[in-house]
Amino acid sequence: MPEFLELMPPGDALSLLLSHLPDRPSKTEQVRTSDALGRVTGRPVVSPEQLPAFNRSTVDGYAVRASDTYGASDSLPMYLSLVAEVPVGRAPDFKLQPAQAALIFTGGMLPDGADAVVMLETAQAARPGELEILKAVASGENILKAGEDVKQGEEILPAGTMLRPAEIGGLMALGILEIEVIPRPVVGIISSGDEVIPPEQRPQPGQVRDINSYTLGALVHQHGAIPRLFGIMADQAQALRSSLRQALDVCDMVVITAGSSASSRDLTAAVIQEMGAPGVLAHGVNVKPGKPTILAICDGRPVIGLPGNPVSALVVAGIFVVPLIERQLGLPALRLRPQVPARLAINLASQAGREDWVPVRLVTTPSGYSAEPVFFKSNLIFSLSRADGLIHIPPAANGLAAGETVLVELI
Amino acid sequence: MPEFLELMPPGDALSLLLSHLPDRPSKTEQVRTSDALGRVTGRPVVSPEQLPAFNRSTVDGYAVRASDTYGASDSLPMYLSLVAEVPVGRAPDFKLQPAQAALIFTGGMLPDGADAVVMLETAQAARPGELEILKAVASGENILKAGEDVKQGEEILPAGTMLRPAEIGGLMALGILEIEVIPRPVVGIISSGDEVIPPEQRPQPGQVRDINSYTLGALVHQHGAIPRLFGIMADQAQALRSSLRQALDVCDMVVITAGSSASSRDLTAAVIQEMGAPGVLAHGVNVKPGKPTILAICDGRPVIGLPGNPVSALVVAGIFVVPLIERQLGLPALRLRPQVPARLAINLASQAGREDWVPVRLVTTPSGYSAEPVFFKSNLIFSLSRADGLIHIPPAANGLAAGETVLVELI
Repeated sequence: MPEFLELMPPGDALSLLLSHLPDRPSKTEQVRTSDALGRVTGRPVVSPEQLPAFNRSTVDGYAVRASDTYGASDSLPMYLSLVAEVPVGRAPDFKLQPAQAALIFTGGMLPDGADAVVMLETAQAARPGELEILKAVASGENILKAGEDVKQGEEILPAGTMLRPAEIGGLMALGILEIEVIPRPVVGIISSGDEVIPPEQRPQPGQVRDINSYTLGALVHQHGAIPRLFGIMADQAQALRSSLRQALDVCDMVVITAGSSASSRDLTAAVIQEMGAPGVLAHGVNVKPGKPTILAICDGRPVIGLPGNPVSALVVAGIFVVPLIERQLGLPALRLRPQVPARLAINLASQAGREDWVPVRLVTTPSGYSAEPVFFKSNLIFSLSRADGLIHIPPAANGLAAGETVLVELI
Repeated sequence: MPEFLELMPPGDALSLLLSHLPDRPSKTEQVRTSDALGRVTGRPVVSPEQLPAFNRSTVDGYAVRASDTYGASDSLPMYLSLVAEVPVGRAPDFKLQPAQAALIFTGGMLPDGADAVVMLETAQAARPGELEILKAVASGENILKAGEDVKQGEEILPAGTMLRPAEIGGLMALGILEIEVIPRPVVGIISSGDEVIPPEQRPQPGQVRDINSYTLGALVHQHGAIPRLFGIMADQAQALRSSLRQALDVCDMVVITAGSSASSRDLTAAVIQEMGAPGVLAHGVNVKPGKPTILAICDGRPVIGLPGNPVSALVVAGIFVVPLIERQLGLPALRLRPQVPARLAINLASQAGREDWVPVRLVTTPSGYSAEPVFFKSNLIFSLSRADGLIHIPPAANGLAAGETVLVELI
């Protein structure tokens, strides 16, 4: 499985990976709705009741029969008997008769017989118990009808819906206090490299502290999965094999940052290949940074070998690991990605056929944001920390011209 | 403090609120760097050491003195003695002499005397112990110099930096295992309304379940603060007063969703006014939805009275509560807001002078996203759940035309 014999376009490589995974995981779990922000529904949610449960006023005013107000105007008011006040939070204990009106507040329950509300501002008390209506209302005006938001038995959320504040509120409004969601996938993270030591240790000359376990752990967490760190493995087949096997036993996906040398990457690919069918699908991807990426599916679980350079590892994880997490979370394939439009500050060259990702800083100008490429090397982690986001040069382009509008994906 | 006498533009209202708060909170707390994703630095971070700590190779190849390779080409190779291999993860125990080369792998530590690396591909073994160099390298080529990423004593992160995966990794690379961050602000949430009951209860006719505590709790959590729910208060001055006082004692900010009727909003404003100076700064804001919003600062803590309608409450919380949380988190005032550019599907009218927020659904088309406004009423929570985001019609506009490019803020 020597690398780079054929570099796969990253889009094709991702599609190939996803084609080996089911559209939606079959397992679900029950969680409290109030704790379910960011979780994804595991099955369609059907409303147990209608919302609103009763006809409600949307204004402060007078509940009326609309037909009693027809023709009313400032110059020719209609007169109604003001017979009652609707108590807030309780059902009215009366039925509105023709030519009657009842005081009602926003949110109040319409009495039987009423089909509209005249706003306070367009009516006035004439004599005690008598009301002048200065403006006609149509049937249904200034009210919410029972079931107007949601009908009983209506599917309110399809499976695969990410729960945002609005959905949490809607579920609570219906008394749905628990909800079936897709379990967060567990992503195992293995660092490899004979020169890599845990950050707690003081590096000796020639050694470096582990970065990738932590950048990737944070990325995985950010996207709704659970990172599980398996530590740092020596670049030896036996160590890598047992660590990877152990991770695959308890994780839904495993990410290995391969050592940086070509031989250690080949070793990683060979060990991944042993872990299950179909094994390695791509070894080498036509993307910069991140060419030496290994993409595999082993017995239904993705195994991703990322480059050892921390900038490459993080950028490539955004291209492959994040969409795989989203699939394992049951989210639709074409997710909206938040972006910031900006004008590119300088020309950017790129090699046709290769997909490039370039870190940029966003600078405010009178005409919007300017995207200024940040000088970076894929092994200098702080070059990413100077960037606000990444721009993407597609394989078909030879580069991008200064002044072009680009979409910056925030990092 | 009657509402609506003068409607303040929302931008002015937010500036006025922020002008009463310090730029950055003075309190900080220490957290583990590996748990600090999304937290904000409380003071500048200075690097205790340089990164990389030593000169490193960025390729697999041969460490050389660059001057020994000058003039080398395919047709006229230069010959060097291959004297050693640099062990991975350890310091070389030799010094490179003139006309010598040493095998080195990516990430390896350059031996003393070497100042460049010749890539494997541009050299070949001639006889045992002898190496043909087929391409000259310049001094510094294919190496990272010690301190090239970060110098010792350099400020690597200013105060007020939101920690993303890249920053977490950079800090770990430097052995900074704990970091001083700004405490998450605690936001108290009070629901009011005589018709509102907890979602656990079965509503009687005229009653509705609490929505706002949960939508707002989720929003507050999403933006990095800690929601604290104080339950549902009756629309009575005494209940509201004691609940608000209790919340202000333990929270950094308090949000009240006022009852929906004008009288209950006036009551809320009057009670807020008692809580401390300067008190209510705006009662009524020129925004739709959300006109009946109350904005106050009481003894240094923001108190926001939101409309009772759940859609209005959530939209207005995005306009005022989120920027206030960001200020209390120590984030810069002009935060990048992730947006999705789209073409507006239909004409949208709006009233000049008023700022409008319109929920839209994003539909994929061959030329990008189309933004289709979602029919909504501010009291129908599920109308928001049909939207992907909101578009903003500024006060100066009379509306937006079909085909215009709009920026959709995802919700």
